[in-house]
Amino acid sequence: MLLAAFCLSGQAKDYKLPKPQTKAGMSLLEALSKRASARAFSQREIDAKTLSTVLWAACGINREKEKKITAPSAINAQDILIYVARQDGAFLYDPRTNTLKQVTEKDVRPYLAAGQQFVTQAPVSLIMVSDQSRFGNRSRGAADMGKYDAAYVSENICLVCTALGLNTVPRMMMDTVGLSRELGLTPQQVPLLNNPIGWPPAK
Amino acid sequence: MLLAAFCLSGQAKDYKLPKPQTKAGMSLLEALSKRASARAFSQREIDAKTLSTVLWAACGINREKEKKITAPSAINAQDILIYVARQDGAFLYDPRTNTLKQVTEKDVRPYLAAGQQFVTQAPVSLIMVSDQSRFGNRSRGAADMGKYDAAYVSENICLVCTALGLNTVPRMMMDTVGLSRELGLTPQQVPLLNNPIGWPPAK
Repeated sequence: MLLAAFCLSGQAKDYKLPKPQTKAGMSLLEALSKRASARAFSQREIDAKTLSTVLWAACGINREKEKKITAPSAINAQDILIYVARQDGAFLYDPRTNTLKQVTEKDVRPYLAAGQQFVTQAPVSLIMVSDQSRFGNRSRGAADMGKYDAAYVSENICLVCTALGLNTVPRMMMDTVGLSRELGLTPQQVPLLNNPIGWPPAK
Repeated sequence: MLLAAFCLSGQAKDYKLPKPQTKAGMSLLEALSKRASARAFSQREIDAKTLSTVLWAACGINREKEKKITAPSAINAQDILIYVARQDGAFLYDPRTNTLKQVTEKDVRPYLAAGQQFVTQAPVSLIMVSDQSRFGNRSRGAADMGKYDAAYVSENICLVCTALGLNTVPRMMMDTVGLSRELGLTPQQVPLLNNPIGWPPAK
């Protein structure tokens, strides 16, 4: 099991991720050359190190002192939360501690599928949620800012998956009402995009 | 002048770009490590080869046979048009021919600045315009799809600028009414985001 590879830290259900890979690997230009949406996945697990690298690339801290992140963020609100959906539950990624916090033991992937069966075949789906409260009293344009910010993060995911040899496709479709309930979202936390992720199927 | 480096093809005001760089260079993970918004620019010109590489990375063709592009695009509508704004005018990028088509001789960068003076200091700004007509009769959700698609393209620009050593910052602010008029946009062509681009200022 993947969770066995995590280091259980303090409270139950907080999982410390291993350090992400942040150097070397495929060139950006080669990743752009190879970027393509792919909707077929092997059942092979995604190991903790790979997941940590994907999450860091998505919106991890890239300037430790200022706590700034890899993805552009309107007025540096850092409004995008990433939830990791797997068969054994859903987890909120905390970029500052590189930790996953379990929010449910339910498999919420069927809420993401919304009828597209291939989605539940992916061992992991990442869900981009804009926390509109992070815009504070600068709420003018916050709905649009959230959408742009979600796609900045999602493109980082698409490119790092390409570089690591993982398949993914960015999607708008999902049952946002069901998901919001299962993830315990507030009315200001809005699910916007998701990326199912998995290794390519055996040929 | 930069345009002197272009190869004038056929009709006046169509400029064939040199082939983009599509291999080697900085790793994706290093580009993510270094990605940061930067709002200061040298006056040094951006050469045609560099501009071609930035535009290809943004939304160029990466699968020649299927004419598919580097950036994800909802229902493969490829709705994002990129306009290149410089002192000597504005140009529409055609990814299929790697050509710039001049649409005005005016300097439209003041419409982008919308009061932020640093924007007019950048020798080049790229403007992401969603052509909503490309969604055809699948117009449900087209406004949102355009926003996501614009940010996918904009993130490619942020990352390739990092990899090439260029400064940039993604922006929502601009005078969309004035810009639409100067660029000759249709009511279905909506300016959404822009990225001023330039070499870092001398230290």
